[in-house]
Amino acid sequence: MTDVLTFGETMALLTPHQVGLLRHADSLAVGIAGAESNVAIGLARLGASVRWIGRVGDDEFGRLITMTLRGEGVDVRAVVDPDGPTALMLKEQRMSRATRVVYYRAHSAGSRLSPADVDEASIASARVLHVSGITAALSASARDAVLTAVTHARAAGVLVSLDVNHRSALWDAATAAPVYRELVAASDIVFATEAEASMIVDGSDAVSLARALSGLGPSAVIVKRGSLGAVAVIDGQDHVVPPIPVTAIDSVGAGDAFAAGYLAGLCADESPEACLALAARTGAFAVTVRGDWEGAPTRDELVLLDAAPDEVAR
Amino acid sequence: MTDVLTFGETMALLTPHQVGLLRHADSLAVGIAGAESNVAIGLARLGASVRWIGRVGDDEFGRLITMTLRGEGVDVRAVVDPDGPTALMLKEQRMSRATRVVYYRAHSAGSRLSPADVDEASIASARVLHVSGITAALSASARDAVLTAVTHARAAGVLVSLDVNHRSALWDAATAAPVYRELVAASDIVFATEAEASMIVDGSDAVSLARALSGLGPSAVIVKRGSLGAVAVIDGQDHVVPPIPVTAIDSVGAGDAFAAGYLAGLCADESPEACLALAARTGAFAVTVRGDWEGAPTRDELVLLDAAPDEVAR
Amino acid sequence: MTDVLTFGETMALLTPHQVGLLRHADSLAVGIAGAESNVAIGLARLGASVRWIGRVGDDEFGRLITMTLRGEGVDVRAVVDPDGPTALMLKEQRMSRATRVVYYRAHSAGSRLSPADVDEASIASARVLHVSGITAALSASARDAVLTAVTHARAAGVLVSLDVNHRSALWDAATAAPVYRELVAASDIVFATEAEASMIVDGSDAVSLARALSGLGPSAVIVKRGSLGAVAVIDGQDHVVPPIPVTAIDSVGAGDAFAAGYLAGLCADESPEACLALAARTGAFAVTVRGDWEGAPTRDELVLLDAAPDEVAR
Amino acid sequence: MTDVLTFGETMALLTPHQVGLLRHADSLAVGIAGAESNVAIGLARLGASVRWIGRVGDDEFGRLITMTLRGEGVDVRAVVDPDGPTALMLKEQRMSRATRVVYYRAHSAGSRLSPADVDEASIASARVLHVSGITAALSASARDAVLTAVTHARAAGVLVSLDVNHRSALWDAATAAPVYRELVAASDIVFATEAEASMIVDGSDAVSLARALSGLGPSAVIVKRGSLGAVAVIDGQDHVVPPIPVTAIDSVGAGDAFAAGYLAGLCADESPEACLALAARTGAFAVTVRGDWEGAPTRDELVLLDAAPDEVAR
Amino acid sequence: MTDVLTFGETMALLTPHQVGLLRHADSLAVGIAGAESNVAIGLARLGASVRWIGRVGDDEFGRLITMTLRGEGVDVRAVVDPDGPTALMLKEQRMSRATRVVYYRAHSAGSRLSPADVDEASIASARVLHVSGITAALSASARDAVLTAVTHARAAGVLVSLDVNHRSALWDAATAAPVYRELVAASDIVFATEAEASMIVDGSDAVSLARALSGLGPSAVIVKRGSLGAVAVIDGQDHVVPPIPVTAIDSVGAGDAFAAGYLAGLCADESPEACLALAARTGAFAVTVRGDWEGAPTRDELVLLDAAPDEVAR
Amino acid sequence: MTDVLTFGETMALLTPHQVGLLRHADSLAVGIAGAESNVAIGLARLGASVRWIGRVGDDEFGRLITMTLRGEGVDVRAVVDPDGPTALMLKEQRMSRATRVVYYRAHSAGSRLSPADVDEASIASARVLHVSGITAALSASARDAVLTAVTHARAAGVLVSLDVNHRSALWDAATAAPVYRELVAASDIVFATEAEASMIVDGSDAVSLARALSGLGPSAVIVKRGSLGAVAVIDGQDHVVPPIPVTAIDSVGAGDAFAAGYLAGLCADESPEACLALAARTGAFAVTVRGDWEGAPTRDELVLLDAAPDEVAR
Ligand SMILES: Nc1ncnc2c1ncn2[C@@H]1O[C@H](COP(=O)(O)OP(=O)(O)O)[C@@H](O)[C@H]1O
Ligand SMILES: Nc1ncnc2c1ncn2[C@@H]1O[C@H](COP(=O)(O)OP(=O)(O)O)[C@@H](O)[C@H]1O
Ligand SMILES: Nc1ncnc2c1ncn2[C@@H]1O[C@H](COP(=O)(O)OP(=O)(O)O)[C@@H](O)[C@H]1O
Ligand SMILES: Nc1ncnc2c1ncn2[C@@H]1O[C@H](COP(=O)(O)OP(=O)(O)O)[C@@H](O)[C@H]1O
Ligand SMILES: Nc1ncnc2c1ncn2[C@@H]1O[C@H](COP(=O)(O)OP(=O)(O)O)[C@@H](O)[C@H]1O
Ligand SMILES: Nc1ncnc2c1ncn2[C@@H]1O[C@H](COP(=O)(O)OP(=O)(O)O)[C@@H](O)[C@H]1O
Repeated sequence: MTDVLTFGETMALLTPHQVGLLRHADSLAVGIAGAESNVAIGLARLGASVRWIGRVGDDEFGRLITMTLRGEGVDVRAVVDPDGPTALMLKEQRMSRATRVVYYRAHSAGSRLSPADVDEASIASARVLHVSGITAALSASARDAVLTAVTHARAAGVLVSLDVNHRSALWDAATAAPVYRELVAASDIVFATEAEASMIVDGSDAVSLARALSGLGPSAVIVKRGSLGAVAVIDGQDHVVPPIPVTAIDSVGAGDAFAAGYLAGLCADESPEACLALAARTGAFAVTVRGDWEGAPTRDELVLLDAAPDEVAR
Repeated sequence: MTDVLTFGETMALLTPHQVGLLRHADSLAVGIAGAESNVAIGLARLGASVRWIGRVGDDEFGRLITMTLRGEGVDVRAVVDPDGPTALMLKEQRMSRATRVVYYRAHSAGSRLSPADVDEASIASARVLHVSGITAALSASARDAVLTAVTHARAAGVLVSLDVNHRSALWDAATAAPVYRELVAASDIVFATEAEASMIVDGSDAVSLARALSGLGPSAVIVKRGSLGAVAVIDGQDHVVPPIPVTAIDSVGAGDAFAAGYLAGLCADESPEACLALAARTGAFAVTVRGDWEGAPTRDELVLLDAAPDEVAR
Repeated sequence: MTDVLTFGETMALLTPHQVGLLRHADSLAVGIAGAESNVAIGLARLGASVRWIGRVGDDEFGRLITMTLRGEGVDVRAVVDPDGPTALMLKEQRMSRATRVVYYRAHSAGSRLSPADVDEASIASARVLHVSGITAALSASARDAVLTAVTHARAAGVLVSLDVNHRSALWDAATAAPVYRELVAASDIVFATEAEASMIVDGSDAVSLARALSGLGPSAVIVKRGSLGAVAVIDGQDHVVPPIPVTAIDSVGAGDAFAAGYLAGLCADESPEACLALAARTGAFAVTVRGDWEGAPTRDELVLLDAAPDEVAR
Repeated sequence: MTDVLTFGETMALLTPHQVGLLRHADSLAVGIAGAESNVAIGLARLGASVRWIGRVGDDEFGRLITMTLRGEGVDVRAVVDPDGPTALMLKEQRMSRATRVVYYRAHSAGSRLSPADVDEASIASARVLHVSGITAALSASARDAVLTAVTHARAAGVLVSLDVNHRSALWDAATAAPVYRELVAASDIVFATEAEASMIVDGSDAVSLARALSGLGPSAVIVKRGSLGAVAVIDGQDHVVPPIPVTAIDSVGAGDAFAAGYLAGLCADESPEACLALAARTGAFAVTVRGDWEGAPTRDELVLLDAAPDEVAR
Repeated sequence: MTDVLTFGETMALLTPHQVGLLRHADSLAVGIAGAESNVAIGLARLGASVRWIGRVGDDEFGRLITMTLRGEGVDVRAVVDPDGPTALMLKEQRMSRATRVVYYRAHSAGSRLSPADVDEASIASARVLHVSGITAALSASARDAVLTAVTHARAAGVLVSLDVNHRSALWDAATAAPVYRELVAASDIVFATEAEASMIVDGSDAVSLARALSGLGPSAVIVKRGSLGAVAVIDGQDHVVPPIPVTAIDSVGAGDAFAAGYLAGLCADESPEACLALAARTGAFAVTVRGDWEGAPTRDELVLLDAAPDEVAR
Repeated sequence: MTDVLTFGETMALLTPHQVGLLRHADSLAVGIAGAESNVAIGLARLGASVRWIGRVGDDEFGRLITMTLRGEGVDVRAVVDPDGPTALMLKEQRMSRATRVVYYRAHSAGSRLSPADVDEASIASARVLHVSGITAALSASARDAVLTAVTHARAAGVLVSLDVNHRSALWDAATAAPVYRELVAASDIVFATEAEASMIVDGSDAVSLARALSGLGPSAVIVKRGSLGAVAVIDGQDHVVPPIPVTAIDSVGAGDAFAAGYLAGLCADESPEACLALAARTGAFAVTVRGDWEGAPTRDELVLLDAAPDEVAR
């Protein structure tokens, strides 16, 4: 039995070592990134069992993805696609507070995901199916894969978790919104930033947005507010999730860590309050280390959030 | 037709990769720096056409300077001097907030600049001649080059722009002040920090200093105040230039970027207000990236100043 | 008047710093490469004036290409293509003596070259037009660009130089051969390796292959044999070009350097023997430094080939 | 069903990036190494299923070992030992051809292996149990683990493979020899270098040593001779294994790769000749890349051994 | 005549280059650290003559320690111990504000210090003997060495300086407290953080703790409060030492620098106020550079503390 | 009593990390070099006591030199010269087998050496005074320092050792030769390469050159022949010193190591044969590691020369 099953596209990630123009970088750090695999790693670190399904190219970057996810304890089901390369993502911190991302993602292996890749048996044997809006943006077949998987999950009584994760480089809001709406309606748990929630429903603030999303069906809706924390409506009940104060180093990946925290709590049969607290602590922890997933904490490590500044354990 | 012509000494710049004693550095990053070529690059990034004249040694550092400036789109006129090496600059951040600079600059190629290097025709075909007080400090022949160029420019109706740029390692205030005064009087546009302005005129604050400098002749005087912004007196009119809030990473080069912004506005026939705004935005942008000129923005990139903190475009 | 005009696709080149699996590399060195721009740099180093035409994406890698080529003294005419990204090339030295190359090149800006990019006036004002078989393999429009340019050159009495440069990752021999044959017939100068020559004509050894290619029209044919040197048939005359003994570090780019040497001699009105000698020395020099073009020598530096092993000039 | 089960101590490996004194290194590369896990990775690369059992400390180096082996596709059974740290190995290439190794290995987690760690069920479900003499040298309990595992394997009809792997830093020849003799007698397949064979049996050359070892019981004995290849006696038949010519970069790990090749052939039911050939090719391949296991080839990659020098596939 | 004699264990220090999990670090920076040798370097930088006694392994890390300390101008008396390796310390900044330290220190050369290593003559010829509580925690013989040295010093009229320096990884508070009490009673000068003082005496705040420690015997007691400064009781007189405002980069080593500053003042026969001021400035300076001792200032450099933010001396 | 006293200029050495054009290097490795201090380090490694006298600038590079030499166990007497900077040396390996050196050495602190820096007492208390022809080339005062020191040594009965060490970048052969002749005549031991010997005396081969130099006065003359070994005439006796076969990585510094070996033998009262053998082994060892002095061996390490290729001690 797997706690969480997730699928999507994971890319090789190339990043300059310093703030500034990419063209001035002598070399690029090599890693991997993908919203769903970030969540998978976050879950594995928190002790959940998790399977990730995806397609990778028959190339070194594909093997890097498989190697890294396996190394992190994720159960990897990666189809090696001879017909599409592994996608690339270039992340350039142009200046101290603006980051630009460029993709080499067209016709990639990962975007060639289709319903056939996500087997019903895998879904049925999981407690939660976690999907993101990114996959729906990759290609028609990938969107199909998401919708089909969600249908299978519902049929099998598997909880459906959705992170909206809008990517404006992949599709525009007008095209995306109806798809998001359809997915939200079919989900049990929904994660969205305020901006994403506003694409789907109307609302004057985070709470009203959460309630509106909740009205579309999901029993749990969490609206994330970055360093301001989050709000949630779970089983009709409002929750305010205060932020954990941290020294942020890299805010990318906070949302994925947050989702991992929430789902880890859920799979450990914790209360909504405990799930939200774990989510907030995991999300806050994640921004204290560079990288989309590298900093994800184990449960043991979460106490470091309570350390005095510059504390040294020795 | 060239928008801006500038000349001066550009050096190879060697810097440790970390804060601390230079002698503990295993390796030094290699780059180039020079106030006038910093301005030239800043202008090129903002779309102006710009020519830089200088002397470099017949050595790899000289070729590095030519290669880098050409690569940045500057029209380089570099005399290769067989009799002097390219100067070096070592920049050591001794502690979190104090930087020390050491030069290997005596008898350098760049300091051997003379009036013969700066041809009248080049000057006459430019809209603006930009000079700095540093060149006047390098050697007698270099000072001559500045004075002669300014004379040619005035004769040809070319605007003269001066950045005072005092360098206490090259000459003392007492020696420098009269030269600065002579240059200010012969210039149309003058950039000075408050401390520099105080070396030349009396004044109790930035505005009164700007007015006093203005009284020496220039139609535009800008007194820079670092993270506090700047003030200006242009065509008799006072201007206050508020600072753009940024997360500063490296404040060196702000003044050169500021000058580039102002002159770029001027060459695009923008209003004084627009020139000052472009200057302030360019100066602020420059401090968000390590390096004297590396972070200089294009016009398109200036919108990043308005980004939310940690915004990721993806 | 330009000595040599050339055009083609230049890519960003990413390479691990060490021999071994790419997926084990923590970071990748960033550079650029492209057969025609390699030749252009080689020519610039040897003192020839050279223009390179190409398309780059509206991205940092595109700007890296422009910056690097300009920095090397090449007159760059780069169309910035909003509709295709700059291509990437990954070069992995899998083991001590086998290198694997992977491209992210489909739909790239560079492959979208078309006849419109290569203006007749540029061609007419050059002494030599240099093209390579790679461009013919990129796309239909790129092939057209080659054929049209060659036609224009012939019409304008401009010498046509061709480096066959077969790339099996881009097309197969059967498709390529007739195109090569057409190009050879339209060229004045042809460079080919033995393997490439064999794809086009029959011949039992390098000399007979050169003669056979010569029979298709070109007045000068050079068949390259790596560390064994080269043979040539120029104006009906056979030439054997002995290799210059060197300690090879990276053999990629030897052919481009060789072509640059030959064409530099030609543009300096040197004899066939002198052109071949310059080609051989330039090709040999190029393999003594890592990188496709980085090691290309100036004329002054060629004497280092005659240095005693481990000679230190101090 | 697992093809091969192996167990032993894997250490964090710290190495300077350059030849020379370790104390002059500014930083040390971090990796892992251990004879048995090297073999496990080699087998996984060649397509075999393989399980590795070991103990690691409750520390980051322990987690590095688990992460790396899992990433390489090895089924890891690592007991996290709260009472011993993960061992360290420092590898210093003191000069161009002499390497020195230092261990922080006393009281390490890995050396606390005991019979309880190697479960009978795991052994019984494998086709081959692979052990090395190193484990027998680590501690009394580790030696026990080896002997007990071998006994279980024999009882279960599982093939026993032994690599003698003498380490003079761990024990002296006089102490080790009787243990080796006992292990050889209990093994089906034995790998030894000439020097190791000589510690156990008498013999004037590799072949006579192999025959003598063979006389102790094992049906297959391979005596390795580094760049000279190997000899074997299998089912009473002599075999000479010629070396594959390669450019060696790092000879450490050749023996482990060789063993992996042999066992991979065996598990694929190949003939003795084919097993030996695969062993020799895998061993030769391994020395063409720096690292104890990093260069291990897949079956597909073995063709690169036949590449022309400096061949570039593009 | 030596100003200060000190002894203890110095370790090789390995640190990742970035914040995050150690197991994700590709390489570790190599340095040395040890509370007493940190103090020794701090003293040498401030112009005092200082001798450090210790034991190092017969290995490269031992030689690194000797080389580094000698290079810093410390008079090194290092016994090379053939029977214990040089200890290692791994320092991992797990997240932006929590650091974890792991030791490979059991049975190390340094922990094998014994009374025989600290010769009476050395002690007698010094003005101050400086010891720390860490040494007392290393082993029985090391504790003996401390107690014996203190006894010799008292007998010879040499001032005894003690930094409590509690290390919870080495011993627990209950075991340590009586030893600290004994040492405090035998010392003239005592440095302790508030937490350490509370282990030894009762007190509601820093001042009352200092007074209570003072009651045990020492004529000078300084209780350190990190970025809040320090308080002291010297010759019965209370002192409040305000913190010097700095941008802290790495707070480890502040206490050692503080002690060095105090003792340097003492050896220069400065007043208590001047000693405390020098201590506070040296401690503050030390946190502005990464590293336990690397940033320690000379007297000349202390003026940089008064520099304007981002001041550049050029 | 010091075994060897030596003096001269030591420089900061900046070197790219790779073969190729210096201007393509992103960063330069920082070290130190100077013929006499190389010899000093070589001697210290071999167990001799050695003092080095020199002048350094009041700058970080000066402090780097002092720190490094002290760290290596050399007794450093470095005058800090406020009026000249520490000299720099840039070492560029332009291609696989040719290295170019550039100096920033004019008016340097080190070149301001004068007789006053080399105190008679130091000379008198040494067994050997070692000087090199480089110092004589630096300036008139430096030449004076050499000549005066040699005179003092002779007067005090201290052996004079000379390494001719011609540097064509500092002076030409015609100017240098008479100075070398004077120095040779005043020396007891002379080291020269064949080329250097030929500048001073006539001779058809190494042996005849050695004999001719011997005729000028020195009781021991060694003519070095790089990888071919050396010849010597000692006390009228010819010696042929065969080369030790090694894999050379960096041949710079071989001569300094050779001299160190010879003098170390002498100070240990070894026979001429033993001194020459130690010299040859030390020289050969030095070329197996990158750096001018970094690889210098201890006596214990010399056995590594006899190791089998790729031997691993573990
Ligand atoms: N700087 C921060 N400080 C504390 N918590 C944060 C910080 N940034 C993010 N978080 C936590 O992580 C959650 C998700 O982060 P957010 O940035 O809103 O998501 P996303 O990465 O999807 O944009 C937040 O709701 C908050 O709980
Ligand atoms: N930290 C900062 N924040 C915002 N703007 C800045 C900052 N530093 C500099 N600038 C802008 O750049 C201009 C020039 O910077 P300044 O530091 O005064 O010049 P200089 O580099 O010549 O000393 C300032 O007038 C201001 O407009
Ligand atoms: N190892 C080498 N030694 C000497 N010269 C070489 C070496 N490699 C290449 N060359 C010179 O460069 C020329 C082109 O090299 P080659 O490898 O044949 O071309 P390509 O790079 O097109 O495959 C050769 O004809 C020869 O003159
Ligand atoms: N330089 C080499 N060239 C070709 N094959 C090699 C080389 N080194 C090792 N091998 C192959 O790997 C095998 C094992 O290598 P060896 O060095 O003998 O083992 P070990 O690493 O156990 O000392 C050899 O028998 C040989 O087949
Ligand atoms: N951030 C800081 N700012 C200013 N001074 C500091 C800072 N940190 C330490 N200091 C100075 O150094 C002294 C010792 O630092 P502290 O952190 O208390 O010691 P320790 O390193 O022993 O824990 C403090 O009393 C204070 O004077
Ligand atoms: N490649 C080498 N192989 C073996 N020994 C060498 C090698 N290079 C130098 N040596 C030894 O070092 C000595 C000095 O080297 P050499 O290169 O002649 O001096 P220099 O560095 O002064 O030019 C030689 O005489 C020889 O004994």
